[in-house]
Amino acid sequence: MKVIVDLCVVPIGVGVSLSKYVAACEGVLSEAGLSTRLHAYGTNVEGEWDEVFAAVKRCHEVLHEMGAPRLNTTIKLGTRTDKAQTMDDKVRSVERRR
Amino acid sequence: MKVIVDLCVVPIGVGVSLSKYVAACEGVLSEAGLSTRLHAYGTNVEGEWDEVFAAVKRCHEVLHEMGAPRLNTTIKLGTRTDKAQTMDDKVRSVERRR
Amino acid sequence: MKVIVDLCVVPIGVGVSLSKYVAACEGVLSEAGLSTRLHAYGTNVEGEWDEVFAAVKRCHEVLHEMGAPRLNTTIKLGTRTDKAQTMDDKVRSVERRR
Amino acid sequence: MKVIVDLCVVPIGVGVSLSKYVAACEGVLSEAGLSTRLHAYGTNVEGEWDEVFAAVKRCHEVLHEMGAPRLNTTIKLGTRTDKAQTMDDKVRSVERRR
Repeated sequence: MKVIVDLCVVPIGVGVSLSKYVAACEGVLSEAGLSTRLHAYGTNVEGEWDEVFAAVKRCHEVLHEMGAPRLNTTIKLGTRTDKAQTMDDKVRSVERRR
Repeated sequence: MKVIVDLCVVPIGVGVSLSKYVAACEGVLSEAGLSTRLHAYGTNVEGEWDEVFAAVKRCHEVLHEMGAPRLNTTIKLGTRTDKAQTMDDKVRSVERRR
Repeated sequence: MKVIVDLCVVPIGVGVSLSKYVAACEGVLSEAGLSTRLHAYGTNVEGEWDEVFAAVKRCHEVLHEMGAPRLNTTIKLGTRTDKAQTMDDKVRSVERRR
Repeated sequence: MKVIVDLCVVPIGVGVSLSKYVAACEGVLSEAGLSTRLHAYGTNVEGEWDEVFAAVKRCHEVLHEMGAPRLNTTIKLGTRTDKAQTMDDKVRSVERRR
């Protein structure tokens, strides 16, 4: 089952600057071979369900190892059986309507 | 790794009445032996990471089998290494402040 | 326009214990005369759109005044034109399916 | 109060193809003079709180007028008092860590 995810991991208890933690998550997703797109409020990820969620779990493990005592994550995720659709397809389908 | 999740699965393409799909998700979570609390905009779930996310995946599989061609899910999730905390602990820690 | 909201405000840069901030948000919502239900990962709120969002803004103002330098909030919200539906209706419509 | 928002509006009860509704929201945000970035799972928006949330409300009104009987929206939003930060700043602060 393919999934498109929007992932936003927020460490709590490490001060206000979070970019190094977001970059570490990007590293985890990239090492997992997943296709990603960073935006201003999260990262779009696409791939097979099990691979994507294994990487999300790994993000939590890595950020805790980096010293974050608490993590608050928001995920939007979509699956569909009616057709195959990539992240780029989703953006293009809206842009065509402009 | 323990996780507390707030899960909201929204089927798309099956009309406006979604309660039977939400009830089916509740059934999946319950069969998985997970502790849950239904609220007006989702379901709180707690358990071991792998068990919780296996159940979330199973919700997607079951709802697609029920005929939903597209699913849009929102998840909030928290993990912490500083202390053990249940869903009930979280609610009580706020209620004590009232 | 009536709206049902699930609100989760997370202060960043004030350490790991967030319950006093959540309780302050509850106070703001209550003073605004809004109907609320606290759960383990947020608060359900219902009311008129403008009143609900004025209260959400007030939550941000109050928490910044309490010293939180950064706030990360997640909101799920629903509106519908096909029928009137309260938070309790939503829960009951699922419970009837059990 | 400046706010950065990630907005994802999902119409329910209009079938599986949602791009024309997302494009209509983009039109509303653009007419409101707000700075936006479309991604595969929503739209980043930045601006003054009141202007941003007036536009979000307008999106709901417009999509209901287009015939969507039910809307399910997910919003992530951030405010901060410690420094001014744009959407582009947020992306760059992560990219610098790569």
